[in-house]
Amino acid sequence: MGNAVRFDYQHQQPVTIISGADAFANLRGYCEQHQGAKLNILVLTSKGHHQRGSLQPLLDQLHPHPFTVIDSIQPNPDIDALDALIAELSPQSFNVVIGFGGGSVIDAAKVVACSLAGANSRPLHQRFRANEATAVTRTCSLISVPTTAGTGAEVTPFATVWDDAEKRKYSLSGAAVAPDAALLDARLTLSLPAFETLYSGLDALSHSMESLWNTNRTPISEAYSRQAFRLIVQALPEVLANPADTHSRAMMQQASLLAGLAIATTRTAVAHSMSYPLTSHYQVPHGIACSYTLPGVLQVLKQDPDGTFAELLHDLYEPAMQLLAQLPIMAELENYVQWSQIEALLPEMDVKQRSGNFILPVNNTVIYKILEYSAVFYRNTEGASLR
Amino acid sequence: MGNAVRFDYQHQQPVTIISGADAFANLRGYCEQHQGAKLNILVLTSKGHHQRGSLQPLLDQLHPHPFTVIDSIQPNPDIDALDALIAELSPQSFNVVIGFGGGSVIDAAKVVACSLAGANSRPLHQRFRANEATAVTRTCSLISVPTTAGTGAEVTPFATVWDDAEKRKYSLSGAAVAPDAALLDARLTLSLPAFETLYSGLDALSHSMESLWNTNRTPISEAYSRQAFRLIVQALPEVLANPADTHSRAMMQQASLLAGLAIATTRTAVAHSMSYPLTSHYQVPHGIACSYTLPGVLQVLKQDPDGTFAELLHDLYEPAMQLLAQLPIMAELENYVQWSQIEALLPEMDVKQRSGNFILPVNNTVIYKILEYSAVFYRNTEGASLR
Repeated sequence: MGNAVRFDYQHQQPVTIISGADAFANLRGYCEQHQGAKLNILVLTSKGHHQRGSLQPLLDQLHPHPFTVIDSIQPNPDIDALDALIAELSPQSFNVVIGFGGGSVIDAAKVVACSLAGANSRPLHQRFRANEATAVTRTCSLISVPTTAGTGAEVTPFATVWDDAEKRKYSLSGAAVAPDAALLDARLTLSLPAFETLYSGLDALSHSMESLWNTNRTPISEAYSRQAFRLIVQALPEVLANPADTHSRAMMQQASLLAGLAIATTRTAVAHSMSYPLTSHYQVPHGIACSYTLPGVLQVLKQDPDGTFAELLHDLYEPAMQLLAQLPIMAELENYVQWSQIEALLPEMDVKQRSGNFILPVNNTVIYKILEYSAVFYRNTEGASLR
Repeated sequence: MGNAVRFDYQHQQPVTIISGADAFANLRGYCEQHQGAKLNILVLTSKGHHQRGSLQPLLDQLHPHPFTVIDSIQPNPDIDALDALIAELSPQSFNVVIGFGGGSVIDAAKVVACSLAGANSRPLHQRFRANEATAVTRTCSLISVPTTAGTGAEVTPFATVWDDAEKRKYSLSGAAVAPDAALLDARLTLSLPAFETLYSGLDALSHSMESLWNTNRTPISEAYSRQAFRLIVQALPEVLANPADTHSRAMMQQASLLAGLAIATTRTAVAHSMSYPLTSHYQVPHGIACSYTLPGVLQVLKQDPDGTFAELLHDLYEPAMQLLAQLPIMAELENYVQWSQIEALLPEMDVKQRSGNFILPVNNTVIYKILEYSAVFYRNTEGASLR
């Protein structure tokens, strides 16, 4: 290790992962084992999944236990909407909560599961807006069923909650926030549209790299990161070219899982720090916002005069640059924001909670370099297009 | 993936890993959290550790809880000796068992912890010799503290028990067999003699590769395997050249852990299958016995006419061959057995429980090829010497 990988750490990976075409068949047994014979199940999802019927194979497995489906979960779930939902659901004594969807649905399921009666009695908005470091507890079982391949939310011990009223976002985190089990069936991702496939794939790519150039990197997180990266380099171009290929879809799903396991240890770093103003000001999709800077970050590390990061960049720099050059990142980004507008956001890009995890000290000079290197990179690549 | 990696799997990693110079400082809190304020601790170790005082820093952390140290654990613990020990210890109501030592000590701790009163009441020899598939349970906490870097026993859900009377060995396995926590302090491995450093390092190397050419390989086990392999290639020559280098020692300790996590999922394969007669007939140390065939296995996969294993061998074949060529494997092996004697053991080398995990069907022809390729490999390498 040319630079510091942490040998002092505590590691727990509490999520049971159930993967494959039979994943749902194991669901009822898993829940009964943990909650006893009398289950009362809450399924959170989005309208789309409910209407398209993709939820049905899962619901079929719950019989004869009672279940309630709530399909009103919106992207980037708002704290007041979640509070209303929690108040409505709490009297029903659910002992299993299932989040079936993308990152927003799974994050909502995490928040709801940690807030139902018996867990935390005070409303979220009170706890978050008062900046209280609340101990998060949970009594029900929590199961994640991802339908995208990218966020890693199916295994991470944190959830993002949005405060539309106060224009802020909060992070709920702690051991209770991690799902008890993640069910992975790659067929659920087959119908993802091209742009969502790209965005979520870029999210996973970004996680795999952000967890490597990270001061919290451990030998275990590095194992997850590099395996995720290896899978993405192979499968992301394939899945964009041939969206119906179940094998590539499964590889991306496993990569998302592995990258999620990595950031569960390390959290994200400078590329995520630089993403937030693009999303809050210009609604740039998260997957694009957190990956448009990846070429610049790689370049900044490569340029280090002491060659400190040679070992880190080994098997990373070249395949990453090749992959990034063939993805339509810039074309997608320009649908939302121009480069001059991005540069103007520089003063907001150093969010220490994230940039502080980067293995180089971050300041405006470093951020400027990352932006400039990225601009040069995209100027010199052809830039495929999705549309 | 050129060949089948499993996407259908269930994965649990129940071991909390506490690594670093402060690992012991976390021990008491960990035990109190799981067993309450009243601890009664059993420490199993070997005479050497007890006499050299290397156990003391751990014992210092147990204060004021009562503890009992048993330092009579022998290499390859015998089933009747363990039964006698369990009968003696059971009345004392231990609620924490700590295994402090190499693989044999940790395996003994697993067996004892799963056999103390309250867990399984019938003696081991009855359960094993009757070939009963006993459900293994455990009520006490089980902590592993490895002092070698190789077996991976600190995280695996299985333990080997030897039956000296009936000249057999048994495997205890199940979720209860995996330790609750593994404490890793690399300083404990600093005093390992050169031959033990080599043998245990080769054991870890073998695990990292056996879990890759394995039908049970999953994307998660592959992450562990490849990271373990990457660390070993770098650190094993370093630690043999400079045994006092804590950083290399820590890398080997982490590699052993990662390789253990990998075989916890996959178990071992053909190289282990081919090792057993060497150990039972000629007492060849396990690390040498399970790795002398690695060049031959690599070669057999490389020779596959369809190139099926190109992806698997990528980043594996070349660095593995280079590493194996510079290690004194043949010199050590010849201290115990001659090559003609090894070849005569061929009929005993196909232990299906292990060889059945190999990604090619194993028969005597394949085993013969592995032996021949290995012989040619060692004939063409200089072969360093430890002594």
